Amino acid sequence: MDSRKKIIVLHGPNLNLLGQREPEVYGFQNLEAINRSIAEEGQKKGLDTEIRQSNSEGQLIDWIHEASTNYAGIIINPGAFTHYSLAIRDALAAIDLPIVEVHLSNIYAREEFRSRSVIAPVVTGQVSGFGAMSYLAALNIMEDLIRK
Amino acid sequence: MDSRKKIIVLHGPNLNLLGQREPEVYGFQNLEAINRSIAEEGQKKGLDTEIRQSNSEGQLIDWIHEASTNYAGIIINPGAFTHYSLAIRDALAAIDLPIVEVHLSNIYAREEFRSRSVIAPVVTGQVSGFGAMSYLAALNIMEDLIRK
Amino acid sequence: MDSRKKIIVLHGPNLNLLGQREPEVYGFQNLEAINRSIAEEGQKKGLDTEIRQSNSEGQLIDWIHEASTNYAGIIINPGAFTHYSLAIRDALAAIDLPIVEVHLSNIYAREEFRSRSVIAPVVTGQVSGFGAMSYLAALNIMEDLIRK
Amino acid sequence: MDSRKKIIVLHGPNLNLLGQREPEVYGFQNLEAINRSIAEEGQKKGLDTEIRQSNSEGQLIDWIHEASTNYAGIIINPGAFTHYSLAIRDALAAIDLPIVEVHLSNIYAREEFRSRSVIAPVVTGQVSGFGAMSYLAALNIMEDLIRK
Amino acid sequence: MDSRKKIIVLHGPNLNLLGQREPEVYGFQNLEAINRSIAEEGQKKGLDTEIRQSNSEGQLIDWIHEASTNYAGIIINPGAFTHYSLAIRDALAAIDLPIVEVHLSNIYAREEFRSRSVIAPVVTGQVSGFGAMSYLAALNIMEDLIRK
Amino acid sequence: MDSRKKIIVLHGPNLNLLGQREPEVYGFQNLEAINRSIAEEGQKKGLDTEIRQSNSEGQLIDWIHEASTNYAGIIINPGAFTHYSLAIRDALAAIDLPIVEVHLSNIYAREEFRSRSVIAPVVTGQVSGFGAMSYLAALNIMEDLIRK
Amino acid sequence: MDSRKKIIVLHGPNLNLLGQREPEVYGFQNLEAINRSIAEEGQKKGLDTEIRQSNSEGQLIDWIHEASTNYAGIIINPGAFTHYSLAIRDALAAIDLPIVEVHLSNIYAREEFRSRSVIAPVVTGQVSGFGAMSYLAALNIMEDLIRK
Amino acid sequence: MDSRKKIIVLHGPNLNLLGQREPEVYGFQNLEAINRSIAEEGQKKGLDTEIRQSNSEGQLIDWIHEASTNYAGIIINPGAFTHYSLAIRDALAAIDLPIVEVHLSNIYAREEFRSRSVIAPVVTGQVSGFGAMSYLAALNIMEDLIRK
Amino acid sequence: MDSRKKIIVLHGPNLNLLGQREPEVYGFQNLEAINRSIAEEGQKKGLDTEIRQSNSEGQLIDWIHEASTNYAGIIINPGAFTHYSLAIRDALAAIDLPIVEVHLSNIYAREEFRSRSVIAPVVTGQVSGFGAMSYLAALNIMEDLIRK
Amino acid sequence: MDSRKKIIVLHGPNLNLLGQREPEVYGFQNLEAINRSIAEEGQKKGLDTEIRQSNSEGQLIDWIHEASTNYAGIIINPGAFTHYSLAIRDALAAIDLPIVEVHLSNIYAREEFRSRSVIAPVVTGQVSGFGAMSYLAALNIMEDLIRK
Amino acid sequence: MDSRKKIIVLHGPNLNLLGQREPEVYGFQNLEAINRSIAEEGQKKGLDTEIRQSNSEGQLIDWIHEASTNYAGIIINPGAFTHYSLAIRDALAAIDLPIVEVHLSNIYAREEFRSRSVIAPVVTGQVSGFGAMSYLAALNIMEDLIRK
Amino acid sequence: MDSRKKIIVLHGPNLNLLGQREPEVYGFQNLEAINRSIAEEGQKKGLDTEIRQSNSEGQLIDWIHEASTNYAGIIINPGAFTHYSLAIRDALAAIDLPIVEVHLSNIYAREEFRSRSVIAPVVTGQVSGFGAMSYLAALNIMEDLIRK
Repeated sequence: MDSRKKIIVLHGPNLNLLGQREPEVYGFQNLEAINRSIAEEGQKKGLDTEIRQSNSEGQLIDWIHEASTNYAGIIINPGAFTHYSLAIRDALAAIDLPIVEVHLSNIYAREEFRSRSVIAPVVTGQVSGFGAMSYLAALNIMEDLIRK
Repeated sequence: MDSRKKIIVLHGPNLNLLGQREPEVYGFQNLEAINRSIAEEGQKKGLDTEIRQSNSEGQLIDWIHEASTNYAGIIINPGAFTHYSLAIRDALAAIDLPIVEVHLSNIYAREEFRSRSVIAPVVTGQVSGFGAMSYLAALNIMEDLIRK
Repeated sequence: MDSRKKIIVLHGPNLNLLGQREPEVYGFQNLEAINRSIAEEGQKKGLDTEIRQSNSEGQLIDWIHEASTNYAGIIINPGAFTHYSLAIRDALAAIDLPIVEVHLSNIYAREEFRSRSVIAPVVTGQVSGFGAMSYLAALNIMEDLIRK
Repeated sequence: MDSRKKIIVLHGPNLNLLGQREPEVYGFQNLEAINRSIAEEGQKKGLDTEIRQSNSEGQLIDWIHEASTNYAGIIINPGAFTHYSLAIRDALAAIDLPIVEVHLSNIYAREEFRSRSVIAPVVTGQVSGFGAMSYLAALNIMEDLIRK
Repeated sequence: MDSRKKIIVLHGPNLNLLGQREPEVYGFQNLEAINRSIAEEGQKKGLDTEIRQSNSEGQLIDWIHEASTNYAGIIINPGAFTHYSLAIRDALAAIDLPIVEVHLSNIYAREEFRSRSVIAPVVTGQVSGFGAMSYLAALNIMEDLIRK
Repeated sequence: MDSRKKIIVLHGPNLNLLGQREPEVYGFQNLEAINRSIAEEGQKKGLDTEIRQSNSEGQLIDWIHEASTNYAGIIINPGAFTHYSLAIRDALAAIDLPIVEVHLSNIYAREEFRSRSVIAPVVTGQVSGFGAMSYLAALNIMEDLIRK
Repeated sequence: MDSRKKIIVLHGPNLNLLGQREPEVYGFQNLEAINRSIAEEGQKKGLDTEIRQSNSEGQLIDWIHEASTNYAGIIINPGAFTHYSLAIRDALAAIDLPIVEVHLSNIYAREEFRSRSVIAPVVTGQVSGFGAMSYLAALNIMEDLIRK
Repeated sequence: MDSRKKIIVLHGPNLNLLGQREPEVYGFQNLEAINRSIAEEGQKKGLDTEIRQSNSEGQLIDWIHEASTNYAGIIINPGAFTHYSLAIRDALAAIDLPIVEVHLSNIYAREEFRSRSVIAPVVTGQVSGFGAMSYLAALNIMEDLIRK
Repeated sequence: MDSRKKIIVLHGPNLNLLGQREPEVYGFQNLEAINRSIAEEGQKKGLDTEIRQSNSEGQLIDWIHEASTNYAGIIINPGAFTHYSLAIRDALAAIDLPIVEVHLSNIYAREEFRSRSVIAPVVTGQVSGFGAMSYLAALNIMEDLIRK
Repeated sequence: MDSRKKIIVLHGPNLNLLGQREPEVYGFQNLEAINRSIAEEGQKKGLDTEIRQSNSEGQLIDWIHEASTNYAGIIINPGAFTHYSLAIRDALAAIDLPIVEVHLSNIYAREEFRSRSVIAPVVTGQVSGFGAMSYLAALNIMEDLIRK
Repeated sequence: MDSRKKIIVLHGPNLNLLGQREPEVYGFQNLEAINRSIAEEGQKKGLDTEIRQSNSEGQLIDWIHEASTNYAGIIINPGAFTHYSLAIRDALAAIDLPIVEVHLSNIYAREEFRSRSVIAPVVTGQVSGFGAMSYLAALNIMEDLIRK
Repeated sequence: MDSRKKIIVLHGPNLNLLGQREPEVYGFQNLEAINRSIAEEGQKKGLDTEIRQSNSEGQLIDWIHEASTNYAGIIINPGAFTHYSLAIRDALAAIDLPIVEVHLSNIYAREEFRSRSVIAPVVTGQVSGFGAMSYLAALNIMEDLIRK
C-alpha cells in the first residue's frame, strides 16, 4: 500500500490492561476491541493502520523513528509517559509528520499531574476525553491532515 | 426540529476577527466560512447547529444556561476565557449535557498561560490544534455522544 | 423609604440556576425562594432589600456604583467572580459602605482555587458555608453595621 | 439542661488579651464583655453557652473531644492556630457536630499568612470580620444548624 | 477628519468614579476634567480624540475591534482588567495599530497583584504613575508613533 | 527489667479517638485494643512496652526527653504533628536512640499536606499505611534495631 | 504452590549494585545476600517468594502486569523510579493486589527530590529506612495483608 | 526590685537538653551554666533576670502575657517554635515591651526551614549565631533599650 | 542656572553600545544621537540636562546621591540593573525628588526576568517601550512634575 | 588494550537521528561522522573509545554498570534523559570513575526545562554548546582526568 | 598596633546618607556620629577600629580580601547587597576570620525581599534591629570572638 | 599580532584568592599558576591570550565592550556574578564573538543557587567542573570556534 496512506497508531504503557484497569475511568472495552474499531474506521477511509502497544519508553521511541520513513502520520496515546517522557517528546519533535495525541479519559479532570502534557507542545493537536471515540476522531482528523 | 438533534456552537471573544487576526496562528479562513462548514457538516449528520459568537463573558453564560433546555450538546471555543473564566466554568458544570471544548490552535505550543484551561476539568473532552477541522471533529464526536 | 434603611443584595453569575445546579453543593432551594426569605427577614428588621442577579461582571460593577448613593449597605455573593474579578474588587473598594461577602457553600472545603477570594480584602467581613442561612445572617449583621 | 441545647464556645490563644491587644484591629471590648454578650444572646434563644479560653493547643483539642458527647455544636475562634494547627483540624474533623469558625477581624485583609485557614475545610462554615458581632451571628446560625 | 489623525482613548472599569475613589491614589480630578485635558491636548496637536469608558470587558473588546478600521492609534487604561483580561490582550494583539497602555497610579508601588500587566506584552509601550499627565504624555507619544 | 529491653510507644493527638474517628480511614479498632496487641507482641519478643498518648506537643516532647535515659527505642505516631511540629523533630533529633515513625493510614494517599513529614528526616525509618499492623511491624523492626 | 501464597518481590534500577554502591547509604550486603534472607523469611512463613531485578521501567511494568494473575501480593523497591515513573504508578494502580513499597535508606533524610514518591499514593503502605530489614518487615506485613 | 529593672529570659523547647544535644551545633555548655552567666551579667548591670524554660507553646504564651505587667523587657530564644508558632508571634506582638530574639546557632547557615523566623517581624531585633554569647549580647542591648 | 531647572539623566550599563547592540530591539540610533535629542528637547523647555552613562552600579549610586542637592529631578534608565539592583533602589528611595524610570524597549514583551523592575516601586512613574521617544516623554513629564 | 586506556562514550535517546533532526540546533553531521571524529581523536591520544547509542534508559544503565569494571572513564550525552532520569543519575553516582557530561547544543539557551540537568550533580564536569566539538573537548579532558 | 586587636568595620551602599535617609527607619544619627561611637567603644575595649564605607560592590570585596591579612575580625553592614551580592558572600566565605553581620533596622519587619540575607549563611552571626546599638553590640561580641 | 588570533580571558570576583580560598573546592593552584598554563597553552596554539581579573562588575563590563573590537573571542569565568549579573549577561549578548563560560568547580554539585547561570543563555557554550583544566579545554574549543 502507498506509504502516504499508512498511519501508525502507538499505545503507551498500561493500555494493554484496558477493560480491566479502572473501567469507570478508561471504559469497559479492551484494547483488542478498540484496535478493531480503529482498523475498521481506517479501512472505510482507505487508510492502512499499523497498531502497536508497548510499556517501554525506548521501544516507543524506536517505533517513532521508524515511522518517519514508512508512515504518513502518527496517532499516539503516550499513557503516563505523557507527563514526563521528554525523550518521547524529542523523538516526536524530530519527525516531520502530522501527529495526533490521544487520551481516552479527560486528563484535565483528574489528578493535577495529569493536566500537563510534555508531549503536547510538539504535536499537531490533541483529542482527549472521549474514550475509544478519541482514536476514531483522531483518525478522521489524520485523514484530513495527510491530504494537505 | 427535535431538540435532541440540536447542537449549540459557541465562539468566545475575538473569534469574530478570524482570518485577519494572526493568520499564521489561527488560519486564513474567516468565521463565516468556518460557520458554513460547521452547518454543512451538521446537515450531513442530521444535526441542527445554532452558532453564536460573543466577546462578552456574561452573554456566553446566558447562552450556556439557555442551552440546558433547548439543545442536546454544546461545542464551545472559549477563546481567551479558557484560561481564567471560572464563571463560564461554573455555567458549564451546572449543565447536564455533553460538552466539547474546541481550540483552533494548539494551545499547548504557545505562551505558557495558554496551556492551562480552567474549563477543561468540567467538559466531556477537548479537541485542539487542527484549525477549522477542530470544530468538525467536535461535531462528529458530539453526534456520537448524544446518541448514547 | 429612608435610604439609610435600604440594602442592596447582589447575586453573581450562575446563581439564577440555584436549585437545579449541583444541589448537593448549593442546596435544593431556588433563587426565588431564597430571595423571598431575604425580603421577609428584611421586613422584620425594618430594612428594605433590593435584590438583583447578573451573569455579567460589568453589570454588577454598575450596580455597585449605583449603590454608593442609594443604599446603606451591600450584601454580595460574587459567585465565581470571587476568585478573579479584580474589577469588582476595585468597585467595592471605591464604595464607602459596609459590605458583607456571602457564600452558600463552604468555599474552603472545595477545589483549591475556590479558597482564595480576591474580594475579601476589601469587604467588611464574610459569611460562608451555611446555605441560604448565609444571606440571613448577613442581613442581621448588616442591620448592626448600618446602625453604627 | 438538654444537651441538644448546649453550645460550647472556644476562644484560642491570646484572646484573653482582648481590649488591650491592638484594639484598632480587635476592638476595645475585653473578653469578659464579649462573653457576657454571647451568654445573653444564648439565653434569649434558649441556648446554654459554655465559654472557655486557652493558649494551649492540647487543651483546646481535649475540649473539642469532650464536646463530642456533651454539646450540640461548637463555635470556635482558633486565633493564630487557625493558620497551622492541623491537630485542631483533625480534632474538629473527628467530631460529628455543626461547627462555626469565627474571627473578630477580617483575616483576608491582613498579613498574607492570615488569609489561609487550615481549619476552614473541616467546619460547617465561617463568619469573619465583624468584631464581637461575629460571635453573635455564629450563635444565630448555630441555632438554625442544630434545629435541622 | 482624516482617520489617520483619529485616536481612540479607552478608560476601563471604575474610572468613571475618578475624583471620588481613593483620591490619594488616583488624584482629585474627575474623569470629565481629565477627558477635557485630553481633548484639548489633542486639538493642539491636530489629533481628533474619541474618548469612551466602560465597566464591561466585552464592550471594551468591541471598541478595540472597531478601532482597527477607524482610528490611527489606541490609548487604553484597562483599569483592573490590566491584571487578568486575556481577552482584552488578545483583542489588542489582533489589532495592527500603535497602542499606549496608561495608568494613573504607579502600579508597581501598590499591591503585589497590580505589578503584573497581562496587557503590556502586546502593546507598543506603557506610561504609568503620573496621574492625568500619563494620558497627555501618551498622546504626545502617540503623535510621534502614528507619524512613522 | 533491663532498660535495653524497654520500648516507649508514643501516640500523638486525636489517636485517643480511634475507632470512632473516620473509621474508614483509621480502622474500627479503638486505641485500647491496639495497645493490647502492641503489649502482647512485645511480650512475645521479650520487650517491655510503655505506651502513652497525648494531645499536647509539650507533653510529647517531655516524654521524648525522658526516653533518652530510660528506654532502648522510640516508636512514635505523631498524628497531625507529623506535618508541622519542628519542636518534636528537634526533640527526636537530640535523642541518640533508634526511632520508628508509624502511621495507621497511607499518608501519601490523602490530602497533599499529609504527604510531607517534618519528622521523617530525623528518625531511623518509617512504616505507614497498614493500620494497627504498622505498630506491630515497627515493634519487630525495633527488636532488630536495638539488638545491633 | 497455591498462588494465594506466592509473593513477587521487585527490585528496581541499580539495586543489582548493592554492596558496592555507596555502602554507607545502602549497606554492605549485596543483593544476593538480601534475596537469600527474603527467601528464607518467606519459607518460614510458608510464602513462596519470586524475586526479580531490572534496570528497565518497561520490564518492571510487564512484571507488575504478570503479577496480577499469578501472585497474591507485590513487594516493590522502585529505586529511583520512585520519584518520577508515573507509568509504574499506573501499572500498580491497575492491579488489585496488596502492594508494599520498600526502601533500604530513609528517603526522607536525603536529597530533597527523594522525599517525594509518585508511587506511594497507589500502594497499600510503605516501609523505609531499615536496610535489608525493610524487606523482611514488608514480608511480615504482606503475610498479614493476604490473610485478610 | 523595681520592675523597670526586671528582665524575663524565656528558653523554648529542647533547650533543657543543651550540652548533650548536638554539641557541635549548640555548644558544650549546659543550660544551667548559661543561666548562671546570664544572671551574673545581669547583676553587673543592675538588672534582675528571671529565667524560665518550657517545651510547651501554651506555657510560653502564658509567661509572655505575664511579662507585660511585671517586666521591663523580654529576651526569648523560641527554639523550633521560631519557625511556625504564630501564636507566640501574636503574644509578643500584643506586648508593648522591648523584645530581643536570640539564637545560639546561626539559623541562616543550617536547614532551609530554619532561615525563616515567624517571630522576627514583631520583635525589636535579633541576635543569632554566637552561642551563649548571644544571650549576653542581648542583655547588653536590653539594658540600652529599657533605658530609652 | 537655577538648580530647580536642572535635570540629571542617568544611563545604566551597556547603553553606551546603543546603535550597535541588538538594533532590532534597541533601535539604530547611538547614545550620542539620543543625548543630543534630550539636550535639545530640554533647551526648548528651559531645562538644563546633565547626561551621564556608567556600567558601574556604585558610580550610578554616587550620582544619585549627588543629584539630591544639585538637581530638580532624575530620569534614569537603569538597564539590566532594573531587575536586581536593590542598592540603586535604596539610593533612589532615599532621594526626595521626582524620578522617572525609562526603558527604550517594552520590557514586558521580552524575557520573563525583564518584566520585573525592583526600581519601579520607588520611582514616581515609568515610561517604557518607545525607543528614544521614551526619554523625550520623560522629559516632558518631568517638566510637569517639577513645576508642582 | 590496557583498561586504564579505554573510554566508553554513551549517546542517549534520539541521537541516532543526528543530521536529520532539527539540524539548525544539533548540527548537520550525522552520528556516524561524529563517532569517527571521536575514534580518531582517541587514537591520536592513545585512548581506545567504545561508542554506543540507545533510546532505552534501562540499556544505558546496564552499560554504565558494565563500564565500572572495564573502562577508565565515561563520556555521556544523556539526551532528554538529562532532565529527568534519576535512575541514570543513580547509576552514574554508583560508579567510581571520571564522568564527563556532554551536550551538542547550549542547553541553557533553549526551553526552560532543558536548563536543569539531574545528571550534572554526580558527574565530574560538563561540556555543552559546541556541537561535535563538545565530544572532542570531553575526550581531551578525560585524558587529563584518567592520568591523575 | 597588634593586628590581632584590629577590627575592620565595613558600611555598604547608601549608609553614607544616614540621618537624612528615611530617619524613621534608620534613625536620626548620621554616619559620622555612629562611627565616633564605634571608635570610642573600640578604644574602651582596647580594639583598633578601621571604618570604611562604599557604594561599590567591587570596592567592598577588595577591602574584605585585604582584611584577611591585616585584621582580626570583620563587622559588616552590607546594606542592600545583603539580599543579592553572592560575590560579597563568596569573599566573606573565603576569609578565615570571625565576621559579624549588622543591620540598623529589623530587616525581618520590612519588605519581603529584605528578610533574606545571602550573606548570613557564611558569617559567624548576625545582629539586627537595634539602630546604632547594633554596631556596638557587634563590637562587644567581636571582642569575645577574637579572644577565643 | 593579528587580532583574529587574540583571546581575552576574564576572571571574575574572588578568583584572585585562588589557592587559598576553599582549596578542596577550587584547587590548590593559585591564579598566577593557572594564568601561566593558559598563556603557555595559547602559545602552543598560536593564540595570544590577554588575561585579566576584577572584583568589579562595571570593570568586567568595560572589558567585555573593549573585547568587541580587539579580540577574536572571550573566555570568561564570571565567579559569583554567574548567578545574578544580568548586566554582564547583556554585555556579552551585545558582543558578536564566540564566548566560552568557564567554571573551576562543578557548579551543579554545590548550593542550589549555584546551579543557575544567568550568563549561560547568551554564551556559545560552557565548560565546568574540571579545575584549571576547564580553562585549557575552553582555549582548545576557542581555537576551533574562531577558525570557523
